[in-house]
Amino acid sequence: MALVVQKYGGTSVGTIEKIRNVARRVARTYDEGNDVVVIVSAMSGETNKLVALAEEMCEFPSEREYDVLVSTGEQVTIALLSMCLQDMGYKAKSYLGHQIPIITDSASSRARILEIGEENIREDLKNGTIVVVAGFQGVDAQGNITTLGRGGSDTSAVAVAAGLKADVCEIYTDVDGIYTTDPRIVPNASKLEKISYEEMLEMASLGAKVLQIRSVEFADKYNVVIHVRSSFNDNPGTLVMKEDADMETVLVSGVTCNKDEAKISVRGIPDKPGIAAGIFVPLSEANITVDMIIQNVSLDGFTDITFTVPKGDLKKAMKIVEGVLEDIGAKGVECDDKVAKISIIGVGMRSHSGVASKMFTTLSQEGINIQMISTSEIKVSCIIEDKYTELAVRVLHDAFELGSDD
Amino acid sequence: MALVVQKYGGTSVGTIEKIRNVARRVARTYDEGNDVVVIVSAMSGETNKLVALAEEMCEFPSEREYDVLVSTGEQVTIALLSMCLQDMGYKAKSYLGHQIPIITDSASSRARILEIGEENIREDLKNGTIVVVAGFQGVDAQGNITTLGRGGSDTSAVAVAAGLKADVCEIYTDVDGIYTTDPRIVPNASKLEKISYEEMLEMASLGAKVLQIRSVEFADKYNVVIHVRSSFNDNPGTLVMKEDADMETVLVSGVTCNKDEAKISVRGIPDKPGIAAGIFVPLSEANITVDMIIQNVSLDGFTDITFTVPKGDLKKAMKIVEGVLEDIGAKGVECDDKVAKISIIGVGMRSHSGVASKMFTTLSQEGINIQMISTSEIKVSCIIEDKYTELAVRVLHDAFELGSDD
Repeated sequence: MALVVQKYGGTSVGTIEKIRNVARRVARTYDEGNDVVVIVSAMSGETNKLVALAEEMCEFPSEREYDVLVSTGEQVTIALLSMCLQDMGYKAKSYLGHQIPIITDSASSRARILEIGEENIREDLKNGTIVVVAGFQGVDAQGNITTLGRGGSDTSAVAVAAGLKADVCEIYTDVDGIYTTDPRIVPNASKLEKISYEEMLEMASLGAKVLQIRSVEFADKYNVVIHVRSSFNDNPGTLVMKEDADMETVLVSGVTCNKDEAKISVRGIPDKPGIAAGIFVPLSEANITVDMIIQNVSLDGFTDITFTVPKGDLKKAMKIVEGVLEDIGAKGVECDDKVAKISIIGVGMRSHSGVASKMFTTLSQEGINIQMISTSEIKVSCIIEDKYTELAVRVLHDAFELGSDD
Repeated sequence: MALVVQKYGGTSVGTIEKIRNVARRVARTYDEGNDVVVIVSAMSGETNKLVALAEEMCEFPSEREYDVLVSTGEQVTIALLSMCLQDMGYKAKSYLGHQIPIITDSASSRARILEIGEENIREDLKNGTIVVVAGFQGVDAQGNITTLGRGGSDTSAVAVAAGLKADVCEIYTDVDGIYTTDPRIVPNASKLEKISYEEMLEMASLGAKVLQIRSVEFADKYNVVIHVRSSFNDNPGTLVMKEDADMETVLVSGVTCNKDEAKISVRGIPDKPGIAAGIFVPLSEANITVDMIIQNVSLDGFTDITFTVPKGDLKKAMKIVEGVLEDIGAKGVECDDKVAKISIIGVGMRSHSGVASKMFTTLSQEGINIQMISTSEIKVSCIIEDKYTELAVRVLHDAFELGSDD
């Protein structure tokens, strides 16, 4: 008998009929002799409806009240799923964040889980009850409702699995698992049997939207095995787990692309200490996340700095940079939002050389110009003109032989 | 400076624009120098939508989970109203039932309030915060969410007013106050300036749907003055309060009608002890509320018993009575759902005779046959054929001179 944590996303619980399907799957897992804890998201579309209400009410809604509002979405789902399970003859009980409790810090809308109470759930499991938990929400030390950010239900699931030392945390979604790349771009993309936490983190942060990044960090920290699989079939999905020897034999596990960033170049900056801080401190104070940063070699005492920011923050970032141009003595600034970031990821890179150069060669053979490069131990990313995005993904996927045969 | 509790019903908060109007009224009360606690219902239609989801899920939804589901309606409203007040520059904070806490018993969907925590609210009021409370919901001693039944937000408001010893509890609704009768039946029905708790209880239970009965009982018990008024204008409404000398000078305060009951007659019962129990114990065990009961004088050792039940329970009640007919030796049972109950209510009746006979005379002058009569200290009710309902209300309203001159 195992303790299984299952998480079902918004599309898996989008209608009453779909919730019934989820209940049947949960019941089957229970009938196989397992203890089952289910974490659910809001019915698809519900969170957007609630956000729209807040936006209709005012431009900058109170963050505390925003969390009170949007956390109702998951509350509806846990009640409906628990009703359904009871109607099928099972013992079931719903839990809100504060009833477990899932204690978080007080950062509304982006709270971090600090602690999971396991006592209440354990007691229910002991008497054969299926426990149904509202994802996405928690409660801070003062009793305020908090939410964990978009995709936060993944993190709820992993945190509950970690807290209960569950045998597996199954994340059910509308895809079959983690693929070598986006199958809409490369039809013969293949499903990965397993992937390391580190690789998954790079995949997630680079645009593969299957798992919330924080959930993977959490799983890594507490060594929770995540099984990403589809709620619409019984195919095995992808295991996200500790790196093992098999994984290192693969040079590249996946190719990702991200069109959500824009490039800003500050030109003709006097090459002296403190210039970078003069640009990036005000950006960080405005909560703008800077991703890649490249500083060119100084010529004649002047240098250029190029960096990327989320497209949604481009206007705000440009205004800030324009405001500091005079202070840092720069000659000008320009931006480009017609860029894409293409990345290859794989823990095998650590022990093999030549992976990056193969990427550059492959792109250049197609006449694709590389505007910026950044690398980590297990990743190489290039900024290219966005019209080449799909082409770049396809040729890299081929070059590293990631496609499936069928 | 006074402590004012205001409650706004579903129609008053039915849209974002209406919530803004509520916020303006709340702010005005605050600006006049008062401490303000606001209780709100779900946006109109929302509770019905949630109930429909439960009904779509299963025929007999779990009561615990039903409460988890439907309590989300009020949660949405408190968040939106608090956002709006903050956006207008006021300090505001929302409270769910468990955050106050509003402690109830564990009777899901019809919980009774046991205790109100006042500490958290007091602290907020002290620092100038407008407190926004979710109506309709509470929490039991085990931390389960409970709800107070339809109209429960009225009771939440009165309970909070009682707990905080508020100066007044204003119940905002879509009518101007309590009328002598339904203005849709009698256009010159007049608004009552004040009405005693007892009269209001009779009015509420007899079909005037302005206030939940329990809220009036609560107000009576803790001597909370309720001011029923419209959220769409500034007209003074009706004060529901302790009986005073003025009220006793009025013979009849109101005329009500109720078409929600049906009549059951059990014929030819041997007149011996235990027969009534044989009928009414099984009905009560089936949670069927019996209202009026009349037992005719026994003839030749046989008697008839006639009583009324809610129309919705008629089928169930008939089945139960048919099941006991043999046991009690009755000859037969028949029912009639084409009946209406017409009542006149007034604390003045206590000290004046002739009120009931005036009612009977008035009805008979119009050729309306009285099928059953029941009386209390401050009320006379008659069951009549339902096609005469409006006629009966009009002639009684005239006979007791309740109409306004304008």
